[in-house]
Amino acid sequence: MSDALPTFADVEAAARRIAPFAVRTPLLEAPALSERLGTRAFVKPEMLQKTGSFKFRGATYRISMIPENERKNGVVAFSSGNHAQGVAAAARMFGIPATIVMPADAPRAKLEGTRSFGATIITYDRRKEDREAIAANVVAESGATLVRPFDDAGIVAGQGTIGLEIAEDLNRLGLKNGIVTVPCGGGGISSGIALALSGAAPGMKVVAVEPEDYDGMTRSLRAGAREGAPGHAASIADSLMAPLPGVITFGVAKNYLKGALAISDPELERAVAHAFFKLKLVVEPGGSAGLAALLAGKVPVSGDAVVAVLTGGNVDFDVFARCLQSY
Amino acid sequence: MSDALPTFADVEAAARRIAPFAVRTPLLEAPALSERLGTRAFVKPEMLQKTGSFKFRGATYRISMIPENERKNGVVAFSSGNHAQGVAAAARMFGIPATIVMPADAPRAKLEGTRSFGATIITYDRRKEDREAIAANVVAESGATLVRPFDDAGIVAGQGTIGLEIAEDLNRLGLKNGIVTVPCGGGGISSGIALALSGAAPGMKVVAVEPEDYDGMTRSLRAGAREGAPGHAASIADSLMAPLPGVITFGVAKNYLKGALAISDPELERAVAHAFFKLKLVVEPGGSAGLAALLAGKVPVSGDAVVAVLTGGNVDFDVFARCLQSY
Repeated sequence: MSDALPTFADVEAAARRIAPFAVRTPLLEAPALSERLGTRAFVKPEMLQKTGSFKFRGATYRISMIPENERKNGVVAFSSGNHAQGVAAAARMFGIPATIVMPADAPRAKLEGTRSFGATIITYDRRKEDREAIAANVVAESGATLVRPFDDAGIVAGQGTIGLEIAEDLNRLGLKNGIVTVPCGGGGISSGIALALSGAAPGMKVVAVEPEDYDGMTRSLRAGAREGAPGHAASIADSLMAPLPGVITFGVAKNYLKGALAISDPELERAVAHAFFKLKLVVEPGGSAGLAALLAGKVPVSGDAVVAVLTGGNVDFDVFARCLQSY
Repeated sequence: MSDALPTFADVEAAARRIAPFAVRTPLLEAPALSERLGTRAFVKPEMLQKTGSFKFRGATYRISMIPENERKNGVVAFSSGNHAQGVAAAARMFGIPATIVMPADAPRAKLEGTRSFGATIITYDRRKEDREAIAANVVAESGATLVRPFDDAGIVAGQGTIGLEIAEDLNRLGLKNGIVTVPCGGGGISSGIALALSGAAPGMKVVAVEPEDYDGMTRSLRAGAREGAPGHAASIADSLMAPLPGVITFGVAKNYLKGALAISDPELERAVAHAFFKLKLVVEPGGSAGLAALLAGKVPVSGDAVVAVLTGGNVDFDVFARCLQSY
């Protein structure tokens, strides 16, 4: 894997490549949020993307880059669930076998979703086993291509296509300046969107939002170099439990992100409930981090538009019900 | 009120009038439904409309038609909740006072929503009192304009704007022939969409879907004249409990609807759950009737596209949770 950083042209190339396959999600007005923030607010609903999360974009672009003669060896990925489903669905689309390494305690919705796309699943114990080592074994034995969850220029460019769509829709509405809040695990989608907007709507500033105790991007931006968070706490945001940004994602983020901050589980729960009652959208706890930061008043809003990217909606109903009780 | 039937030109006029106010909802691909039906399937998500249901469209158009000198007297409406919120929000937008007559046992989400738009609410006992008489009293005392829930040419034309948008989006995708399923209470939205598609996409046939025991449209189409259903059963579809289509809605429906059919509460519950797990959308039981009929295999599909109109998402969480348990 090259450590070269993706460019704006890479995001444009990704957009052309995935256009026939991915859902072009709409930018939705969010009246209750607008009223609360005193400015025009929108959500970008990536739970409406194929597989129920944005991960399908990066996976589709990255897999489309695998040379023809290597495709028969398959792909392998490790993921708590959304990247797993994205890779499984994209691989099936290209007729490539997929093996996915998933924690045994991943949400049922994500395990079942991944299985439904025809992938072979290897489960592991999150506390005792090393998922990267398991994936490396599969690569050594089969010659499969490893599709990393975030630290890959193709993945970052693929997730960045969301930024191009946001820019296009805001431009049509005559809106140019403001804030975009994006959930952040390893930093693939937040760095990708920041890169895309730097070219397509430079007045829109991107803020990454992480769970407390997994706020590696916040710490790294402050330190000016990659710095891990403790990453010990339980978090309701299963999709964001990456304590350290990647080499590539941090390389992009430090050039283009406006900032990063952390939010708590109760703030995430309230955002899931807000999405149910006010937006009529099903968002998973981690997918609501950007919205949660806005609802908690943690992001100073400025300009003429605020956009919360809702990254996914793959949540088990018991967890969802618990969030709704917090409202 | 005139009994003149609305025309296709009225729907086009409504679309121009409400464009600055209403959300232009997207047509969303529904991959799980496509797989199940063996044809390309979409949903039209009107829970993403302002007030959480399509009723904002008709209310906005109808209220915009009230002459300037009558506006100060206000508007009055009776409704179990979605029309209530549509009228309240549209009236506030035009600076007109609104009085809404609602059953005391309406869903909390709908009572609170209506109140949040600044309307005066009069509650009544669904079993003992006559809501039309209560509304007529308000009209007599105040000179307010009655905004009927469905049996009004302006309301039908306003709801029909959904059909124009469906036609536009299908046309962009090169799809011309197929089925559109639409929930049906008094018939405002189903007749409006059928009227719109008769002009904008005549290859798309509209099927109205009603709760069992409230299947007045099904009975009326069969009889060739308005015929009421018993309307005694409890139904989970609070928004569709109208046992008899209107004079105007049936007048349009008998010319343009392909057909109508009834579905059961368990079928509605499964559709609400399908929308949660597969579409990541929050739909209320009545709003899922069109989807429910497709999932239950009750609508023969043909052509190259199937569209389920999801009419609203204003549901209390206890009812929602009960639906999800059925999955």
